Formats: sequence, C-alpha cells, structure tokens
Amino acid sequence: MKTIREYSAIINEAIASRQYGEPASLYDPIRYTMEGQGKRLRPVLTLAAAEAMNVAAADAVLPALGVELYHNFTLLHDDIMDNSPTRRGRLAVWKKWDTAQAILSGDTMLSEASGCIIDSPFGPSQRINMLRCFNETALIVDRGQQYDMDFERRSEVALDEYITMIEYKTGALLAGACMIGAMTGDASIDTVEAFRQYGLNLGIAFQIQDDILDVYGDEATLGKPIGGDIVNDKHTWLLISAMEKAPVAMADIFARNLPADEKIAAVREVYDSLGLRALAEQEVERYMSKAIEAIAAAGLSADAAAFFTDFANSLIGRKK
Amino acid sequence: MKTIREYSAIINEAIASRQYGEPASLYDPIRYTMEGQGKRLRPVLTLAAAEAMNVAAADAVLPALGVELYHNFTLLHDDIMDNSPTRRGRLAVWKKWDTAQAILSGDTMLSEASGCIIDSPFGPSQRINMLRCFNETALIVDRGQQYDMDFERRSEVALDEYITMIEYKTGALLAGACMIGAMTGDASIDTVEAFRQYGLNLGIAFQIQDDILDVYGDEATLGKPIGGDIVNDKHTWLLISAMEKAPVAMADIFARNLPADEKIAAVREVYDSLGLRALAEQEVERYMSKAIEAIAAAGLSADAAAFFTDFANSLIGRKK
Repeated sequence: MKTIREYSAIINEAIASRQYGEPASLYDPIRYTMEGQGKRLRPVLTLAAAEAMNVAAADAVLPALGVELYHNFTLLHDDIMDNSPTRRGRLAVWKKWDTAQAILSGDTMLSEASGCIIDSPFGPSQRINMLRCFNETALIVDRGQQYDMDFERRSEVALDEYITMIEYKTGALLAGACMIGAMTGDASIDTVEAFRQYGLNLGIAFQIQDDILDVYGDEATLGKPIGGDIVNDKHTWLLISAMEKAPVAMADIFARNLPADEKIAAVREVYDSLGLRALAEQEVERYMSKAIEAIAAAGLSADAAAFFTDFANSLIGRKK
Repeated sequence: MKTIREYSAIINEAIASRQYGEPASLYDPIRYTMEGQGKRLRPVLTLAAAEAMNVAAADAVLPALGVELYHNFTLLHDDIMDNSPTRRGRLAVWKKWDTAQAILSGDTMLSEASGCIIDSPFGPSQRINMLRCFNETALIVDRGQQYDMDFERRSEVALDEYITMIEYKTGALLAGACMIGAMTGDASIDTVEAFRQYGLNLGIAFQIQDDILDVYGDEATLGKPIGGDIVNDKHTWLLISAMEKAPVAMADIFARNLPADEKIAAVREVYDSLGLRALAEQEVERYMSKAIEAIAAAGLSADAAAFFTDFANSLIGRKK
C-alpha cells in the first residue's frame, strides 16, 4: 500500500497527461475542471482498493481516472442546477462559459468517464462488472441530487430522508470508487459489499461533519463564511433536528426575517440549547464506526485495513 | 426480417413496459420524453441489424431501447442548449419542468441507456464491444452538437465543415444504432464497417434533405412553417452554398434586415437563380448511393439488404 499523497500524485499525473480530442471548445471546460485543485479522494480510494486486492495502482489508473472524471462531471452539472457561480475558488464552468457549454462538456465528461473503464486493462467480465457498478452508482447519485433539489422546495424534511439523500449523493460515489477498485482484483461479493458499506457510511459521516463545520467550523480553514447553510435555509442534520426538537422556536426565527448575522446567531442559540453539536458529533462517530467495522471485516491485509481506517479518520479531520 | 412497422411496435412495447425507479420527480420527465411520438428510426435499425445477423429481435430489445433512450436524451439536452421550447408538438422538458430538472433527468437517461446494454443478454466481450461503440458514438454526437453551436457564432462556415457536423450529429447515431445491432450477432469487422458507412451516409443524406424541405417542403407535411432556417440564419447546405456562389447578393440580403416573409423570398430567389435545389438533391442522391452501396457490399442476405435499402428510401421519402 502507498500513502494517500502517493495515490493522489498518480491521479494528478494521469489527469495531466490525459489527451482529449477536438474541438477545443468542447474539451477546454473539461481540462479546466480537471485542473481544479480537488483532493482526488475518490480515485485514491479506487487505487487503494485495487492494491488491497494485489492489483498494482499503475494498472488501475484508468478506472480511477474514470471515477474522478465522473465526480467532476457531477460538480459541473450540479453547479448549473444549484446556480452556484464558483467552485474551488474559481468560476464555475457555466459562469466562465455558459449553460449550454456546461451541459455539453459535462455530457462528454460522463462518456469519457465510462470510456476509461471500457478501455481499462481487465478482462471483459471484470469490466462489465465495473461498468455495471459505475452505472448504478451514477443512477444513485442522480437520485441523491434529485432528493436534494426536491428538499429545497419543501418546508420540512425528516431526518431519515436526509440520511438517505446524503447516502445517495455523497456516500454512493465513495462506495462506488472503492468497489470499482476492488473489482479490478476480482474481489469476492463479500469484499465488494464490505467496501460498499465502508464508502456509504463514510460518506454519511463526512456530510454530517460538513453540516457541523458550517456552523461551528473555522472560516479560515473552511475557506468560506460560517453559517451559509443557515442563511440559505438548507435542510442539514442540525436544522432538521432543531425543527423536530424545537419547532416553535425555529418557526419563530423563520417568521422574523432576520438579517444574516442575527439569523445565524439565533439558530445557533437553538442548536446550543438543544446540545445538537454533541449529538451530531455522536452521529459522525456512529457512522465512522460502521465504516471502520465494515473494512475490518473485509478480510484485507493489516496494511490495507490500516490504510482505509486512516483514510476515514483523515477525511473527518481526526488524528488517531 | 420484419417490417419497419413491426420493429417499431416492438420498441414501443418495450418503452411502454419499461419500469423506472424512484423518485417520480426524476423519472417523470423521462417517461414524458419517451412517450413522445418519435419515429423510433434508430432502434428499428438496431433490431433489423440484429436480425440481419440472425439474432432474434426479441433478444436485441434492450440494446435497441438503449439507443432510443440515448437519442431522446440528446433531444432533451439539445432543447435546453438550443433554447427550443417545444418538441414533437409538446413542451420541451426544460419548459414543462425547468432547466435543472431537464439536465438531471437527461443525465439519468444517458446512464439508463448504457445500463440497457450492460444488462443485455450477450456475452461479456460482445457487450464490451457494444458499450465501446455506444460510448464512442456518444462522444462523436457531442462533437457534432459542439460544432453546431460553434457554427452559430460564426458568420461563415465551409461546406466540408458542415458535412462533418451533420455526419457527427446525425449520421453517427444512425451508424451506431446499426453497428450495435450487428454486434449482437458478433458481426465481422467488415460488416460492422459496412453498417457504419451506411448509417453515416444515410444521416448526411437525411440532413441535406431536411435542409431542402425547410425551403421547398410542404408546411402541412412538415408540421412547421417554411423558411425557419432562413429566418434564423442557420448555416444549412443551401445557405452555405449560396454564400459561396453569390456572396455579394447574400451579404446584401443580410444587410437589409428584412421582415421574415421578405427575407425568405429574397434568399429563395438567390437559391433558385443558382439552381441550388437541384444541386442539393444531387447531393442527397450521392450520399444515398454511398449508403446503399455500403449495405450491398456487407454480405447480408437478399432479404436483409432489401430491408436496409427500403429503409433508406423511405427515410428520404422516396418510393422505389
């Protein structure tokens, strides 16, 4: 097994040396997106899962690149759907070019992503399995994005609906990235399922952690203002829990149409009075434990199991 | 071999019985799109190519459905990109729902389309070949759409650039539909190539024919007003040829900012004076001949060769 940094370097090298076809007008937005400084978390998981199955990372580069292309495709299209003008400190593609270009270059990225798996150096049956996993992952991620958009139009969302949404939107791709990597080494059904559980639970933990950081994080570390979710009435783990536990206080805040700063302070006061930060952190721990237990039961080498445990801890910003 | 109508009925049955998952908000726009009264030309080609290779149409339904899902996906996204409010006499998805929904449901359609091939009852190697063909076709169609959008921003387009654009945007999918069908029967490389040439040339002939009909067709048959391409300054075979052969007369018309009716009449006068209708019809015949020659050289049964020749003639509205 290599380090996260080493796997990440392999991916960045593959991205830098990837050749695209013509015309430039179609592929420039793809190059621009892929050159953005993402953390390459998902393809790192693909490469690590491959090595955990004794497949050299060099052989699994194409599927890993496909996973990263797919992830960036979702960001590109999501930014149009969510009307988000920036991404990773740069203009979103639909802002830098236009909506039509972002749709089309995104469509091309999705086909380029599956093309990476089609062209990868594994047997036909293995590639069919990987393509099925890739495709089903994409369909689940789409459902997650749909729930996310549907929730925006609703005044109330239940906590279990929210967990399903983040499982689909965030967990499914972490799971798919691991599963595709494991499939390069013809992993057993049980091992693939263990990787799935690992990815799904890690994704849920990661998203709840993200919800906590939006309110209790550090602006400098976060790179964006605190309280954005509150200002945008975003149904997060914290907001949904507060609306369930203190519906009157929350309805009162919504009715008052407060300026951003005051609204953030008022909502945070409700969160604090309910002890929601600690409860949310317990939930993060609970999903983290599920993820780590799943990987411990996958029958990997000690080395590989340690990698995935460390990866999970570092994703949540935990040093252990 | 069956008739076009019989193959079309098989596809309509498959579309009607197709089960999609949840949520309805994601899949309703897909059902709506697929229920639109398309001619099912592309999946008919897939089924016919399969039967030409002695594969029963019933076994090739899934890849054919994938081809039709893909075609409808392109229409759905193209309507957003082209700002077209209607499609087949009904509201386009982005108008009936909104742009975000059209993007996401379209993305799901593309994954559903490749899923049809992944799930089809053919060997892994065959499915990999079909998926590669499907994927490369999608990438070429995207390039065609990109050229189409790029050409809209240009004042001049060369005739060979235009032919490449319609080959990519229209011909590639007719070719891919045939090739995927042929691959269900493990067709030889030469046969697949013959089908590719058939589809590409048929697509080019079909598009030039469409350009002619926009100016010289019958409004009732066409279902839309005559001269739309002229009003929108669309670079068609006729317009590009006129600008090459009579640049001064055409520049004069563009400079006069005429009302729609007068502009159509003025441009048509230039076309007539240059004899462009007859020249365009010769081009249609030339590409039709290439298509029919390709299929004649494919080594198909007389029955199958007759089907594809008849299909080509009926597509161009020719009775032979």
